[in-house]
This record gives sequence, structure tokens and C-alpha cells, in this order.
Amino acid sequence: MSRVLLALFGLALAAGAARADEGMWLPNDFPADKVQAAYGFKPDAAWLDHARLSAIRLAGGCSASLVSPNGLVATNHHCVRECLTQISRKGEDTSATGYLAASPAEEKRCTAIEANRLIDVTTVTERIRKATEGKTGADFASALKVETAAITKECAGGDDNLRCDVQSLFRGGRYDLYKYRRYQDVRIVFAPEDAIADFGGDPDNFEYPRYALDVGFLRIYENGKPLDSKDGYFHFGEREPLPGEVAFTIGNPGSTERLFTVAQLDEERNVTLPRTALYFAEERGILTEFTRRGPEQRRVGEASLLGVENTLKALRGEWEALSEPALIEGKKTAEAALRAKVAADPELAKSSGTAWDDIDAALKRHSAIADRAFAMATLRGASRLLNDALILVRAPVEQAKPDGERLEEYSAARFPALRQRLLADQPIAPDLEIVTLGYWLGKVREILGPDDPAVHKLLGTSSPEQLAETLVKGTKLGDTATRKKLLDAGAAGVGGSNDPMIAFARLVDAEARPVRRQLEDDYDAVLDAAGGKIARAQFALYGNSTYPDATFTMRISYGAVQGWDEAGKSIQPLTRIAGAFDRATGAEPFKLPERWVAAKGNLTASTVLDFATTNDIVGGNSGSPVIDRHGDVMGLAFDGNFKSLGGDFGYDPALNRTVAVSAVAIRESLAKIYGAKALLDELGTVTH
Amino acid sequence: MSRVLLALFGLALAAGAARADEGMWLPNDFPADKVQAAYGFKPDAAWLDHARLSAIRLAGGCSASLVSPNGLVATNHHCVRECLTQISRKGEDTSATGYLAASPAEEKRCTAIEANRLIDVTTVTERIRKATEGKTGADFASALKVETAAITKECAGGDDNLRCDVQSLFRGGRYDLYKYRRYQDVRIVFAPEDAIADFGGDPDNFEYPRYALDVGFLRIYENGKPLDSKDGYFHFGEREPLPGEVAFTIGNPGSTERLFTVAQLDEERNVTLPRTALYFAEERGILTEFTRRGPEQRRVGEASLLGVENTLKALRGEWEALSEPALIEGKKTAEAALRAKVAADPELAKSSGTAWDDIDAALKRHSAIADRAFAMATLRGASRLLNDALILVRAPVEQAKPDGERLEEYSAARFPALRQRLLADQPIAPDLEIVTLGYWLGKVREILGPDDPAVHKLLGTSSPEQLAETLVKGTKLGDTATRKKLLDAGAAGVGGSNDPMIAFARLVDAEARPVRRQLEDDYDAVLDAAGGKIARAQFALYGNSTYPDATFTMRISYGAVQGWDEAGKSIQPLTRIAGAFDRATGAEPFKLPERWVAAKGNLTASTVLDFATTNDIVGGNSGSPVIDRHGDVMGLAFDGNFKSLGGDFGYDPALNRTVAVSAVAIRESLAKIYGAKALLDELGTVTH
Repeated sequence: MSRVLLALFGLALAAGAARADEGMWLPNDFPADKVQAAYGFKPDAAWLDHARLSAIRLAGGCSASLVSPNGLVATNHHCVRECLTQISRKGEDTSATGYLAASPAEEKRCTAIEANRLIDVTTVTERIRKATEGKTGADFASALKVETAAITKECAGGDDNLRCDVQSLFRGGRYDLYKYRRYQDVRIVFAPEDAIADFGGDPDNFEYPRYALDVGFLRIYENGKPLDSKDGYFHFGEREPLPGEVAFTIGNPGSTERLFTVAQLDEERNVTLPRTALYFAEERGILTEFTRRGPEQRRVGEASLLGVENTLKALRGEWEALSEPALIEGKKTAEAALRAKVAADPELAKSSGTAWDDIDAALKRHSAIADRAFAMATLRGASRLLNDALILVRAPVEQAKPDGERLEEYSAARFPALRQRLLADQPIAPDLEIVTLGYWLGKVREILGPDDPAVHKLLGTSSPEQLAETLVKGTKLGDTATRKKLLDAGAAGVGGSNDPMIAFARLVDAEARPVRRQLEDDYDAVLDAAGGKIARAQFALYGNSTYPDATFTMRISYGAVQGWDEAGKSIQPLTRIAGAFDRATGAEPFKLPERWVAAKGNLTASTVLDFATTNDIVGGNSGSPVIDRHGDVMGLAFDGNFKSLGGDFGYDPALNRTVAVSAVAIRESLAKIYGAKALLDELGTVTH
Repeated sequence: MSRVLLALFGLALAAGAARADEGMWLPNDFPADKVQAAYGFKPDAAWLDHARLSAIRLAGGCSASLVSPNGLVATNHHCVRECLTQISRKGEDTSATGYLAASPAEEKRCTAIEANRLIDVTTVTERIRKATEGKTGADFASALKVETAAITKECAGGDDNLRCDVQSLFRGGRYDLYKYRRYQDVRIVFAPEDAIADFGGDPDNFEYPRYALDVGFLRIYENGKPLDSKDGYFHFGEREPLPGEVAFTIGNPGSTERLFTVAQLDEERNVTLPRTALYFAEERGILTEFTRRGPEQRRVGEASLLGVENTLKALRGEWEALSEPALIEGKKTAEAALRAKVAADPELAKSSGTAWDDIDAALKRHSAIADRAFAMATLRGASRLLNDALILVRAPVEQAKPDGERLEEYSAARFPALRQRLLADQPIAPDLEIVTLGYWLGKVREILGPDDPAVHKLLGTSSPEQLAETLVKGTKLGDTATRKKLLDAGAAGVGGSNDPMIAFARLVDAEARPVRRQLEDDYDAVLDAAGGKIARAQFALYGNSTYPDATFTMRISYGAVQGWDEAGKSIQPLTRIAGAFDRATGAEPFKLPERWVAAKGNLTASTVLDFATTNDIVGGNSGSPVIDRHGDVMGLAFDGNFKSLGGDFGYDPALNRTVAVSAVAIRESLAKIYGAKALLDELGTVTH
């Protein structure tokens, strides 16, 4: 990232205002005037409401949109990949071959996917503020939880089909209530072969120009029938994106750290990013070599490998961005200016003046438990069996508590999604589980040291590999009915279980709980409270016209179809189908599917395949519709360029680009390669 | 590393004087007075000469010492591990089982080991200065090479049994000529099982307390007979090290960066260390999983895995040290003070004032080729077959040039060691070669990008894995006779070869040469010239009483047997054999060899096994004798504690510790476990 441009971040934040095209805007605080000023088009309330209702969040971490009146949902292939693995049975590899439901009956259920449709957003800042006023640390955390539980309970009214989340925004500066309609019956309609969906693989990931057809279609069902979505869906476009035209994304960016203090950024660069990147780099090696053991290992391990590779490349990009001295210098300047203004205003000094010191103190406290916290946090990707066992152990304990005292994923609002994933009928790959669980156990020993009491308790006299093998081979939790029985049986059932994975999960729970409690009370709560103070000072000094850090809630970005200049080269915004054939070498990951090779002569080579835009998105936005001023889908965002990875810490209008697959390429391939006539008919024709 | 102590680094460097126990001192500039002041013992010239003659350098990267009048050499197990693999044939795993030559005839040759005995050191600074005076960049590099070649040629006088190296010290501040006797007939005498040599494995590596018997014995042969070393060898001690007593190491620390400028340290922290650590972390994963494919893969892959793990942990330690803000702040203060003094002195300002800017400019130029340089540098660990092919391709080209114009490893002084490694009779493991070569090729593509012309040239339309397999399966270079034939045939022979690995090495050579030339002329030469200017300013301002950065040449350190206090805990300097049994879990890497378990009752449990000292050593010192004031071996240095890894950038007397295996534990195990009576007899009895 150029130093000059990065320096601008600081200025932008200092002024509290977003730069051209920057921003992941709240749907209930969208800067329509700015769009008008920049692009001569002002989205009105109806346009925004329609966009909100047409957008879909996939609770596992993706974005999507309704594209027909019958619940048809467009998203990325990499957002449905897990489902493709799940519907594959021995000898099948749906992810490799692609999938097209030839009839409605063949639309197979993705048992782990929950879809959310946002039906309302309201602000509850004052309510939360009142409940937490004057409280700190554990008291603050507890009061926040209790009030959140009360608000979400009122909102959902006991209806499990509603999901209500209270979301902290601006790092504690504002709290909004998101009310979603929840759908857990989501089925697969279409996905191309992963060789074209992920054409270019890791080498091309987060790069541009790009030639990938990263699309998948799902359908939401309600009461066993396709959802009636006449009230809100996007038309699936039939024309090329035009360089320079305005483009919007509606999606759910996962998380950014643009409002971090300098101390937090230093921690990120010096501790968090390096350790996390090293963890995933080694796991990438493990999984790469695992998938080479044979075709079956490749089938079961590839999704994990791709996930790890994607994370690793993202971390590398963030790290490079943070290692640019100009970025930190810019942040330092902005922070110093803000602190000086706060100090000069007696009222602000009183309300917000201690916030930075509070954060410094929290970071210092955190360093004492950072190792343990990291060891426990990495459990998440270690083993489905162990994570399932942990849910089974925790669920009865947590559900016996009042809603406001539970670990948040066991709250009334969130547990249904957790329960769905727990009971999803997904085949287990024991070999892969042994490898990834063994890796995690080895890392826990490495991080805490072989003499740590927790390590002694978890490993006993076993090696990590031995223990992983014993647990995976001994457990019955791979069987969905067994998990359901244990979950339904509650405390007594799980308590009486002698399943080795359950027994081990009890040990893990005992080690993980105190760390989590400490994190929530001494760290997260302090950061939330201090972040709130800083945000209020910023609102007071610079006004309210900015956007909060990403929180995997709905955000709308605006920008334009546009390339960029870098290192003396001018990168064009559009790629075409012909380019994929030019790039193909015949060797993975540059090997086109056979059906593409065979159809080459039929395809219109000049069809736009992928395109770049200036929209400001990050991970979580995958699958977001990229729509034009009419609200028609021009394409589906599936990636960003490498410089977009610095987007965690700021937006650089000159270099940060969203990468999307075009609607016209999707239509072209559905028609000429996949013979998906019914699907094309359903996508219909754009009439305006 | 504690912040207070790190801050002291800066002060020490600012004053140009080393702190208590700090220093990797030149044998021809040893601060005997300092030892006298600290420990009441002053090594005289005879003591130092005897130490120098008794010490041995293993050219592959280790240290060692003569411990009998008949050429017996003590070093670490991990320094002879490669030889153990080499002498193993299918079905054998000498590294796992250990090895004891029951008779002289069973002392098998380690065909890749070259041993060097330092017979003289002289200073040639003025000669080099005169030859390079006023020159910069490529001219400087070329003049330096030509003069170096002339000096070494005079020194060796055409005798291949002599090895003469001109060594830049103080980063260009001084040049010394090292004259070694070279021995290429080195044979294995004894090594214990790797389960005890490396007890604790990676978890315990760079940690302390420690319980490892990291020892191996070699014998140097001359004209087919054991070397007569009556003129210089150490007595192998028979008593415990005493806490507080003075201890010396004589060895060859590989490299440190203590004289780096702040800009160089920033580059190290922000670019070099992270990228290198990530490279090795991923390779660790690859090799870990490779060694799990089966016992044969484990046998052939374990040495590579251990090497990668060792490097990775070292990089992590260096990184943590450099991420302590206090270290960089201390260096900044010291550098600013030095620059101010230089600026204030008109003469120094003229001779040395531009040095820092020269370095900054070189770093900036370097960043343009850093990716390419890194991609080519990592080739070294990628594949023996490819590296051998590259030597075969380059050797005739280089040897046709005057000595002063060759790539340095092809110079008259250095080529014999390269030739020996090339022709060493070591079995190739094709599976492992495919994996590591494929990894490197994939990384080259990742680093340079799939669209880079070099990547196109190297990979063509193959994937990295496909190409690696084709090359490894197609080459005949695994056969030692084939390599010898090609080497002997010279340019015509290699030129006519259609071996695919030779053909590929030609492509690699074409890509690697210009990068290397650019590095040597635009970067190394500038740093050497600028480093020389800074060093001369330091000598002028602070006097000559310090030591240069490590250069894998002989250094003597002094210190004491001593533990340390850290995080409220007091770590004792000695561990005992009983501790190994306490630590054993029965699972690797905490599994003791069967012979140890069986012999438990016979062993004297209180025998000192390992011990810590304050000696200032780094990688390359492995195998260094730790001797007492009498010149008796108390033990063999094999490691440092975790904080010692910060030793790359400075020495912290409170926390930096050397870790050694005791001579008494070696004797105890030779007597009671390995039945090595002849070896014990040869080690003899200490009479003084």
C-alpha cells in the first residue's frame, strides 16, 4: 500500500468523516446524500427497504440475496461448499463435480445452513446505557448481558423463527437491535465445479484480474414449501457492468479494527497477527500434506485446507498493511489530535479522558492470559467432534441459567443456530479429525509449555497424536442420532455419558471457562466501555456522520465499477470468459472443468466474467449482491484484491477493490454449460 | 525479555563496551583482563593457544573439540545426525537405535563432514582497505573478491589440506585471515539413541531445565589413520560443574545482528523474520504430516523436520526479542548518540557520516528485489538433488574464471567442502525430495505470483507437485557415481547431459544469478562498506575493546555456571539424571530409550545431566566444549534457553543462558548403559 495513501487514513479518521466510497454503512443510517453527490443517484427509503428485505445473511459467515419470488437465493460457491461436502456420500464429490437439482425434489437440504432475513433494526443505545451506567469490568459485562437478554426476549416474544440480536456498534458507542426472520430449511439448487468456482486457487485468491465463477444457488423453504419472497427480491441482471457506474453491496462484513487505538493496533501487529498467522501456516502445511495421502483424504480435507489458506492469506495482507510505518504514524497523529481535543474540553475530559489508559491497562492485563486465551480460541477449528461434545456438555449447564447469564451462544436468540449446526447431518472424516485435533493438542502444549498444569490435565501421559486418535476412534458423537439423544437428555444424559470425547470436553470446559470469563470481564467489557467513551467523544467533536467497525450485521457500501493503478500498471475493471481459457494450464488450480473445455466453442468469449469495484467490503461479505441503481444484481462479491486486506484497518480508495462474479457470466454458463433451463427461467427477465 | 534489561543493551552498545559475561570474543583479541576481574583467573597465551588447537569446527555448521591424543572428537548428537542417517541402510535407523563402533574398523565414514582445525589467525585489514579504498558497489565487491583470492592463495600455497578464509569482522570494520587444517575423513564413533539425545523434542528445545544427552563422538583420520592430536586436545572432565565457577566455550557462533542499525533491525522485524518464520511454519506442517505416512517416511524425514522446527523456534525467539519496544528504543538512543558524535567531529563526519544513509538507501533498493531474493534463497533447503544439479551446472562455469571472480563457494578455499558434500555417499529419499521440492516450487509461485515470467519459465504448465515428481523420478543424480562422472567431465559433460534435473538447474541458475549479483553488488557490498565506516567511527570514539558480530569463525566466551530468575521463579543451573526419569511419560518426545529404562537401577540418579551457564553463544556453537579454568571439558554446549534467542540482537546477562550436557553424564551413560569401555578408556583420567 502506498505510503502517501495510507497517510490519508489518519486524516480521514481524524476528521471523523469517511473518504470517497469508504464505508460499511448501517442500513438505518445510510448516507444517501453522499451517494447523490458522488454518483448523481440518491437511494430513497423505499430503495433501501427493498434492498434490506432482498438481502440474506447466512449465519455461518456469509452474505446472499433473494433473486426470485420463490425463495431462490444467490451466494458464492465457497459459501455452500460445506453443504456440497455434506450431501456427498462415499464415492461422490459434489464439490468437485458441481450440482444441479434437476427438479424441486432434488433440492437437497443443507442441514447446517441458517438463513436470516432482516425485518427490522432499531436503536436501543439509551436502554443499554441506562442499564450499564457507572459500571465497570464484570459488573458492566453482567449488566450488559442481562439487559440484552431482556431486550431480545421482548423482541422475539418466544418465537423461535425470530432471531433478535443486540449489537454493540462503534465499539460500544451505540447499540442496535436487529430482528431477523430465521430460516433453517435451506436447500441446494446449483453449484458449478469447484475447479471453475475457485479457478486459480490460492495463488489467485485475493488477487485480480480474476477468472472464477464463484456462485451457488440455494432455496429457502418455509413449512416445507419454497419461501414466498414476492415482498423483496432482486432481479438478476442481464447486462454487463459498465466501468464507472455506481455499484452497491448489501451484506454482512465480519469484523474490522478501524476504530482501534494505536495501542490496540500495536498489539495486533506485534502479537495477535504473527501468532495467528504462524498457527495457520503450519496447519496449512499439515492439511496440504494430508490431502495428498489419497483422493478420499483430498475430498474430506479440501474444504478445511481452503479455509485455512484463505485465512492465512488474509492475515498476511493485514499484517503487511499494519507493517507500513505510515499507517501507524497516521493513526498516531489522529489519536493524538483527538486526545488533545478531549483533554481541552473539561466535560469530554471527564467523560472520555481515561478511555485510552483504560484500554492500555486492559491490554496489559490481557498479556498475562493471552497465551491461554489463544490456546482455547484455536479450539474452534480443531475438531467438529470435540466442539460438538463441548456444546453437549455446556448446553444443559447454560440453559439452566437465566438468559442474561449464559455464555452468549447459548442465549435464547443464538442457541437455535448452534443447535442446528450440532444436529446437522454431516458425515465425519475420522482421519481428518485425528489430524486436526492432534494439531490443536500439540499447539496447546507448545503454547502453554509441557509443564503447564492444564496441559498435564488434558494430555496426561499421551502424546497429542495418541490422544487425538483415542478420542476420535472411541467416540460415538459422529452419529447424529447419538448427539440428538444426548442433547435431548440434558444434564442427566450428558452427565451419565462415558463417551471419551464427552469426558474430554468436560476437562476442556473446566480449563476454558475461567479464561473466557476473565476475557469477557477484564478485557472485552473494558474495551467496550472505553470504546464507547471514545466513540461518544468522536460524535461530540466530529459529528455522527461515520460508520462503525464491521460486526457481521447488515451494511451497505457504495462505489463504482473501477480498476486501479499499481506499480506502474493499470488494472482494468472487467475480465472476460476468454481470459479463463487463456489462463488455464491444465494443471490445478489452473485447470478448467471438462465441461468448460468442451463448451468453449459455444460460449461467448467476450462475456464479462469477473469485475472489480471500489466498494468497501471485508470477509463476511462473501456472496453479497452487487447491485446497480435499479436494484438489479450485476454480480456477486466473492473476494477483494490483495490491498483490500488492509481494509481491516482503513480504506484506501486508490487501491482497495471488491471482486465480483458477473450475473451475465452466471447466466451464460447456466445456459451453455450446465443446461439449467428451469433455473434460468426462474431468474427471469429484467423488465425495466 | 524484561524491558529494564533490554534497555541496557542500548547503553552497552552506546558505550562500545561489552557487559559482564557478554561477548563472542576473537581468539586473537581475547579480553583476559576482564575474565581476571570477574573470575580471578586470567587465561594466558598458552592457555588460549591450547584451546584454539583443541577446538574443531565442523564445516556444515557445528562446533566440536578434540578429547584424546588420537583424534577423538566430541560434539552434539544433532551435529552427527545427518551422518547417522547416511550410514543407515534400508531397515536400519541408526539415529533411533544409536551407534557404537565396537572396534576401529567399525568407525564408519561420515562422507559429508569436513572438520577444520584453526592453526593460525592474522589480521589483513590494511591490505583489504588498500585494495578497496574509494570504491563502492560492484567495484568494491569485485576488488574485495580479487584481494581475498590473492590472500587466500598465498596462504594455502596450493595445498588442498589447508583452508584459508578472509573474514569480514565488525561488518566490514576489520578483516582477518583464518588458516585451517582441513580434514575430510571423519568417522562416527558413538551416538546415543535420539530419544535421549533429543529428549523433550521440540517442546523442550530452547528451554530449560533440560534433560538431554546431546552427544556424539567422531574421529578424525589422516592418511587412513587416526589423527595424532597430542599437540592439542582437552581432557574430558570427571567432576560436576560447580554453580558459580568460571566456564569458557570455544566454538563458532554462526551469525548475530548486534551491530545492525535501527533501520536494519526494523527490516528484520517487519519483513525478514515474519516471512521466514511463515515459510518454515508451513514446511513444519508439511514435514510433520509427511513423517506420519509411515515408519520409512519418518526415518528419512525426521532430520529435516527437526531442522525446520529448530529454525522456526529460533526465529520465534528472535522475533519476540525484536518486538519488545524497549530493545528498539535502546538501539535508537545508542545510534542517535553515535551519529551525534560523528556529526560533531569533522573528520569522522567526512569518513563515516553518510554510512547510515547508505544503509537506508541499500535497504530501499533491496525491497525491490526482496521477494525474488527470498524465493531463491529458500532453494537451499528445498532439495538435495536440485542443489547438487546446480553445483554441477555452476562448477565448470565458475572454475573457468579467475579465483577472485567466482561465486564465493566455488573459490579455491571453499570448493573442496562443496565438492565433498556433492560427492558424499548419502542415500536419497525420493518421496521426501518430491515433497520438499514441490513445496519450494509452490512457494516460488506464491512469492512471485503465477504471472511472473520466472514462474512461467520454471513451472511451464505444470503444477509444483507435478514438476517436482517429474524431476525427482527422472533424474539419475541420486547416484553418487553419476554425480562424480558429471563433475569430472566438466563443462562438456554437464552441457551434454539431458538429465531433467540438470536441465531444470540451468533454468534456476539463469534466474538466480542476476538476483545474487544484484544482492552482492547493490546490497552486501554497500552494507559492508557502510558497516566498516560505522565500525571505524566506533573504534575511534569508544576504543577497540569490543567483539564483532558472529561469523561462524572461532570465538571464545567466558561466563559462569549459573541459573536465573524469571517470572518470579528461580531456575537452578543443574539438572540430574533422576529428572529425566521424572519427566518421562512414555510418549514421544518424552519417551526414554529402552536401554535407559532397563538401566535405571544401575545409574547414579544424582549425576548432573545438563547445566546452564552465562556464556554468550548462538547457533553454530552447537557441540562447543564448555571448559573450566584447567581446560577440562565440563560439558558440551547444545542449546540455549528461550531468552538466549534474543542473543541475535544483544546479550542479557540476567536471562540469556547456554545449555550444556555434562561430561559426567556422558561418562555415566557410556559406562552403565552403552558398555563403551574402549571409548571410556580413551577419554582417560584427568590427572591434575
